Amino acid sequence: MEALLKEIVAVVGAGNVLTGTDVAQRRVDWLTGAPCQAGAIVRPADTSEVSAVMRLCHAANQPVVTHGGLTGLVHGGEVSPDELAISLERLTAIEAVDLVGGTMTVEAGVPLQRVQELADEHDVQFPLDLGARGSCTIGGNIATNAGGVRVIRYGMMRQQVLGLEAVLADGTVVSSMNHMLKNNAGYDLKQLFIGSEGTLGIVTRAVLRLQPKMSSEQTALVACPSFEALTGLLQHMSHTLGGSLGTFEVMWRNHYALLTVESGRHTPPLPTHSPFYVIIESLDIDDETNAARFGQALESAFEAGLIVDAVLAQSDNQRRGIWDIREDIEGLILNLAPLFTFDVSLPIPEMEAYTDGLEAALRRDWPQGRMVVFGHLGDGNLHVSISVGSTTAEVRRAVEQLVYSPLAELGGSISAEHGIGLEKRDYLALSRTPEEIALMRTLKQALDPRNLLNRHKVLAPES
Amino acid sequence: MEALLKEIVAVVGAGNVLTGTDVAQRRVDWLTGAPCQAGAIVRPADTSEVSAVMRLCHAANQPVVTHGGLTGLVHGGEVSPDELAISLERLTAIEAVDLVGGTMTVEAGVPLQRVQELADEHDVQFPLDLGARGSCTIGGNIATNAGGVRVIRYGMMRQQVLGLEAVLADGTVVSSMNHMLKNNAGYDLKQLFIGSEGTLGIVTRAVLRLQPKMSSEQTALVACPSFEALTGLLQHMSHTLGGSLGTFEVMWRNHYALLTVESGRHTPPLPTHSPFYVIIESLDIDDETNAARFGQALESAFEAGLIVDAVLAQSDNQRRGIWDIREDIEGLILNLAPLFTFDVSLPIPEMEAYTDGLEAALRRDWPQGRMVVFGHLGDGNLHVSISVGSTTAEVRRAVEQLVYSPLAELGGSISAEHGIGLEKRDYLALSRTPEEIALMRTLKQALDPRNLLNRHKVLAPES
Repeated sequence: MEALLKEIVAVVGAGNVLTGTDVAQRRVDWLTGAPCQAGAIVRPADTSEVSAVMRLCHAANQPVVTHGGLTGLVHGGEVSPDELAISLERLTAIEAVDLVGGTMTVEAGVPLQRVQELADEHDVQFPLDLGARGSCTIGGNIATNAGGVRVIRYGMMRQQVLGLEAVLADGTVVSSMNHMLKNNAGYDLKQLFIGSEGTLGIVTRAVLRLQPKMSSEQTALVACPSFEALTGLLQHMSHTLGGSLGTFEVMWRNHYALLTVESGRHTPPLPTHSPFYVIIESLDIDDETNAARFGQALESAFEAGLIVDAVLAQSDNQRRGIWDIREDIEGLILNLAPLFTFDVSLPIPEMEAYTDGLEAALRRDWPQGRMVVFGHLGDGNLHVSISVGSTTAEVRRAVEQLVYSPLAELGGSISAEHGIGLEKRDYLALSRTPEEIALMRTLKQALDPRNLLNRHKVLAPES
Repeated sequence: MEALLKEIVAVVGAGNVLTGTDVAQRRVDWLTGAPCQAGAIVRPADTSEVSAVMRLCHAANQPVVTHGGLTGLVHGGEVSPDELAISLERLTAIEAVDLVGGTMTVEAGVPLQRVQELADEHDVQFPLDLGARGSCTIGGNIATNAGGVRVIRYGMMRQQVLGLEAVLADGTVVSSMNHMLKNNAGYDLKQLFIGSEGTLGIVTRAVLRLQPKMSSEQTALVACPSFEALTGLLQHMSHTLGGSLGTFEVMWRNHYALLTVESGRHTPPLPTHSPFYVIIESLDIDDETNAARFGQALESAFEAGLIVDAVLAQSDNQRRGIWDIREDIEGLILNLAPLFTFDVSLPIPEMEAYTDGLEAALRRDWPQGRMVVFGHLGDGNLHVSISVGSTTAEVRRAVEQLVYSPLAELGGSISAEHGIGLEKRDYLALSRTPEEIALMRTLKQALDPRNLLNRHKVLAPES
């Protein structure tokens, strides 16, 4: 690696090749805080330096791992001493904002929140939103096809990207910086790089789609008497709010009660005896219309027996108070640790049977075990936290089997939004057919035959 | 081919392998009405028969062309006597409608309009819409990533597809029938088959996303005094209507005047002296709010000088009257024939310079030539019709050069929504870089190494 690093220094400069303690000081894992193990961390300045670095790595058969904001949850950023980390932290240029075309052109290292704020300053919005907004980067959002809390209205990151530029394993720059909503001139190559977790190319720049700003946000927390009422409510809200339904986030009672009365962490805005609690948000351009419509939608939901209790946020503070329950991951960890967390998706009509079955199986194997559930129900996405008092590898495997196995039959997914990385690699076959996995390998082989890019992530080595 | 056809008959039945006059009686081209030239037309009943047919074709090195509704405009369905046409006309099952999950599962041969109507019967909507709705099929919409008049609000076909099933060149069935909005379990393989015009696989089934129905539709025709006002109006409408802006269709004066006063085909709802005319539609769930908001948006546009004249449709008949001008392709053909039509996209701020430059170049080379322009401006998409009195191959080349050449520098596309097929293949390099085209070839080689699927479409044979 020594000789290669000398060549790389000639490209990016000595200050941009970190080794030794400079590497170990960095955390590679947001959850565990584990130190970075990379042979070195390379910090190119732009696409052409990324390309030059990859040409050198390709010639030297040097595997690399691309680093963005390192907020991933499936060990996608893990890097071993015989690998280089390529950090895109210097690619932070905002290249253009086009308000007529509704686009923003940025480098991959720009944090999501910077894009959100800049859009806001221009009186438009960039709608992707998730908890890690301050640290995660646009390149990471693209590589992992990030989801979040606005997917029901605006889709995942894939839908926010009009164009991108990527560096292939051999250093080739594939520039597909399309700015138009419509472009059917040949294969839509950007789709290859979105959501493939850095295994097919390194995304260095992107053209993002901006959306009209929704200045009015109505938020309510409601209680549902049954799963049937819950799905009825989703249909009702979708129907009566139309395109304004921005969020439909559900907490199972076990989640809501734990973070309010049981832990004492939050004052419950509603009593805790209902089986489901939903944060519903309606987005619109003016408050008056939005408030009237939202109030009517809730009222008719009451009348139809779809909800039994509701509180409407009257201020930003109250809104924050509702979201604080839903987003209190720290509270979950403190009360359930040691715990496992899962991010699955499945067809909405199957959700109740799935969580009931999972809870029963858990009770059977760990009578003292606990499970709490919340999720982006409108997107089919559930986050399941399970605590059984131990996190040994053996126990982890056993719990993973309980969580993932039923998904195969239900047409569910072992990863709704977090990706596969190393964490879920061995379960991929539960969500995808042998033919699909074979086709993924065909793509990997075609684009990265030397297996240099984020090797062994997503797809396990073939045995 | 004889021996192969016998084997295929054993799979699909004799009545489903058409030859001789049964083939020649079919039209393969919607525009010219040219007869089908296929060696035979094979009509499998379902995915497994498509798979069996492709296994036989693969073993025999038999190239095929997939046929859907045959409404394409770039000769993507063209088929030669040494090729088989595989028609998906028997794959017409609606397999499921899930109103809780908001999905419809269909076979590829189902016409778009059937899906739209069925959604409507269930009080939801399938938002893709285009003129060919009655004939075009869901499989064709997917293969070509169809666009249409609602893209500014709902995106192209790519955004309406949650899952699909495709048969590869060797008969392998890749089933990715995902039903969830969020699924990041490995590569999103469906993206390979959407918009690749049947060159990477044969789409046989799909899971479509349904949307809330917008029962209120407000329609106006407005006149704009300048291109600057036109782009200002797009921003204004986007800002003041938010997510309700459903359509922003622009007619250049030459188009509007031709189809009204010049040809006498339509009574002009507004005088014809303005440079641009826009059909604006606002979609919402109730009429009262929508009408009030739309009226206010138009009023403030007046006050800001963005529009100089406007007519609001007061009835379905008036709405139809406005759209009839925009959709009168027959009128265009009758008045301009012989003509060439183009479907390009480019960044919105560049549009005026592009059309002005194109018109000047046309006048220079053909002083009697005519050009009319309309398009889905909000999507960056312009449809340009050009008449120079001749359509010889030489003249066609010369006009194509004028239309396509400036796009390279502007970051535009030679095909916004129609695709490449055979028609635009030789110009692909104007819209895509050598690296992009090389990557497309890598994909084609990886998925269809024997070049059996829609060979020579999209990508020209390598010289």
